[in-house]
This record gives sequence, structure tokens and C-alpha cells, in this order.
Amino acid sequence: MSDLYPTHDKLVSRAEKETRLGQRGQVLWFYGLSGSGKSTIAQALDRELHAAGRLTKVLDGDNIRGGLNGNLGFSDEDRTENIRRVAEVAKLFAAAGFVVLASFITPTVELRKSAREIVGEDDLTLIYTKASFAACQQRDPKGLYAKVAEGKVPQFTGKDSGFEEPSVDSADVIIDTEALDLAASVAKAKALLVTSD
Amino acid sequence: MSDLYPTHDKLVSRAEKETRLGQRGQVLWFYGLSGSGKSTIAQALDRELHAAGRLTKVLDGDNIRGGLNGNLGFSDEDRTENIRRVAEVAKLFAAAGFVVLASFITPTVELRKSAREIVGEDDLTLIYTKASFAACQQRDPKGLYAKVAEGKVPQFTGKDSGFEEPSVDSADVIIDTEALDLAASVAKAKALLVTSD
Repeated sequence: MSDLYPTHDKLVSRAEKETRLGQRGQVLWFYGLSGSGKSTIAQALDRELHAAGRLTKVLDGDNIRGGLNGNLGFSDEDRTENIRRVAEVAKLFAAAGFVVLASFITPTVELRKSAREIVGEDDLTLIYTKASFAACQQRDPKGLYAKVAEGKVPQFTGKDSGFEEPSVDSADVIIDTEALDLAASVAKAKALLVTSD
Repeated sequence: MSDLYPTHDKLVSRAEKETRLGQRGQVLWFYGLSGSGKSTIAQALDRELHAAGRLTKVLDGDNIRGGLNGNLGFSDEDRTENIRRVAEVAKLFAAAGFVVLASFITPTVELRKSAREIVGEDDLTLIYTKASFAACQQRDPKGLYAKVAEGKVPQFTGKDSGFEEPSVDSADVIIDTEALDLAASVAKAKALLVTSD
């Protein structure tokens, strides 16, 4: 292979992929307490965007904690590495033209800042799915809060482990899931998508 | 949000994405010595598949070592974790319907086995870009071998660190880049793609 040396045929660019897909790669990053509605909104939006011809990728605990981040726990250090890896993967998907719907508790301002730095200001929208601990406890969609009450879940966010709400001057979007129903929540998230034109 | 509880609106499935994209998600994983032609073939194939309307994602040292795996070195342990993470990311892209072109030295049978187990037998094709150390040294597209000769690159695969060729009974495909030119190499790799019908 005499023609092995690097050539000027570069890899297919992000712009070329976006043009092909007819959309702009970007990341909507939902954060909030367990039970605050992150995954429910992401799931409904995923379905709605697909129906509208968009290509999406949902990243959440189900497909990340069980795979890529299966070797991480819930210590502060591991939570930081968890978010770092997710942000790097979200960045790869955005660079391939996907609309990424990431759904992670992301409990601290510092972690959200890290995600923003990795993915890039232009491509990331942080969305706080706001609901009180009491409301999430009452919903308890996964039965987690019941286990927490029995002391069976260590380092649970909002209880033993802190959750920092966005500061008043934060650029993060807030979806108050105690005030809005699912359809309104999804509509609010959908309106945040940057169109390709 | 009274309708927060998990619904039966499942996430958009892999099959739905594949139908939309008109292709089957899969991973072609090129392995071999530095300079053996992995990235050159992946790059040319990326361009060719794009022209044919396919959606692809190249994963290689450039976009992985600088990001997701930026906190890993070249010890045996870190090489194992490097390949594990890449395989998990390749799996996510394949599940989103993309044709993944992964290009990593992947020096041992054990590492290739790990990649195969993570991505899954049906979705992964391992391709050995075969070229002797001497041939790669002569090509030296990145000037790496010159640095190795000066003792400036520790743990260099094929020298200080071993490279295991596939065994004779391996199912891995071999592209001999000393015998084939780039066009023939790319054609051989392209023929390995599973079509969606």
C-alpha cells in the first residue's frame, strides 16, 4: 500500500452529516432529582422528535450506568467521572448530527459547568426539571424513595447527598414539573431546539 | 405533572432508527500496528459510505484519546479500559443505527475478545490490517517510528509492548496492506458491511 500516507480526504465533517440529516447536532441536558421528570420528558420528546423526522439519542442511567460507566459508583469522584464521560459521549453524538437527550441528576453547579465546558456552550442547553423532594417522594416512579425511607439507598441525592438548584443568574432553563403537565413540559423543551436554518 | 409516571411510550427503538436511516447499525473494528493502514482505510471508507448515503461514525485515537479517554495512559490496565470504553461507545452508535468505523491498535486477542463481547457478535466485524513492523517503520506516516528509534516513545506496540496476530482459526478478516493498495483495501472492508435487507 504505497498510498497509505495521510491524504487530504478528510473525514466526513459534522456539517456534511448535519446537511444529510437536515438537522443540527445539539444536546438537551435534563437534570434534577430522581422522580423530577427528566427521563419521562426525554422519552416523550424522543418519540415526538422521531415522528417529526429527527434523529435522536437518549443517554440516561439505563444505557450508561449499565455499560460505559458500569465501573463507577456514587462517590463524589465517581459522579464527576460519570458526568465527564457522559458529556464526552454526548459531544461525539452531537458531532455526528444527533439531537442528544441526556438525562442525569447532575446534582451540583460544578458538574453542570463541567458538562457545559466539555460539550461546548453552543451545543448544550441545560434544563432543570424542578420538583421538590416531597413531590418526588410522593411520585416515586421507581420505588426508590420507599427504599430510601428504609435506609437502603446510600448517598441518595436530595437526602444524604446534596442537590444544588440553579442560581438565580443561571442561564439554565427551568421546567417546573409540579406546575406543568407532561405535554407542556415537552413543548417547553422542544422549543429550545436550535433549528438548522 | 400527574402524568409523570413511566408510560408505555417507549424510547424510539433501534429498528425504527435503522428503518429511518435505511441502513443497519454495525461496527467495523480495524486493528493492527501503528502505520498498518487502519485509519487511512477507515477515513477513505467513511468518505465512500457518505457518498453512498450512509451515516457513519469514525472512532479513533484522535477523537477518543483526546476526550473520553483522555485520563488513560498506555499501561496494560489502561489499554484494557481504553478498549472497553470505545466498545461501549461503538455499541451506543450502532444501537442508533450508525455504521461505526473504529480504528485502534487493539494489540491482544483478549482485548479483541472483549470488544466483541461488549458490542455483540452480530454487530462487530474485526479486521486486521496486516503489515510487518518493518513496513510500518518504513511508512511511518506520523513520524512515530523515528521517535521510537530515539527511545522517545515508551510502551510502543510491536517493540516494547507486544502485538498478537490473529490465530489461524480466528474469524477476524485480514487486509494485508503490504499486498493491497488503498482502493482494494477499502473495497474489501466495504464488502463486509451487512446490508439492511
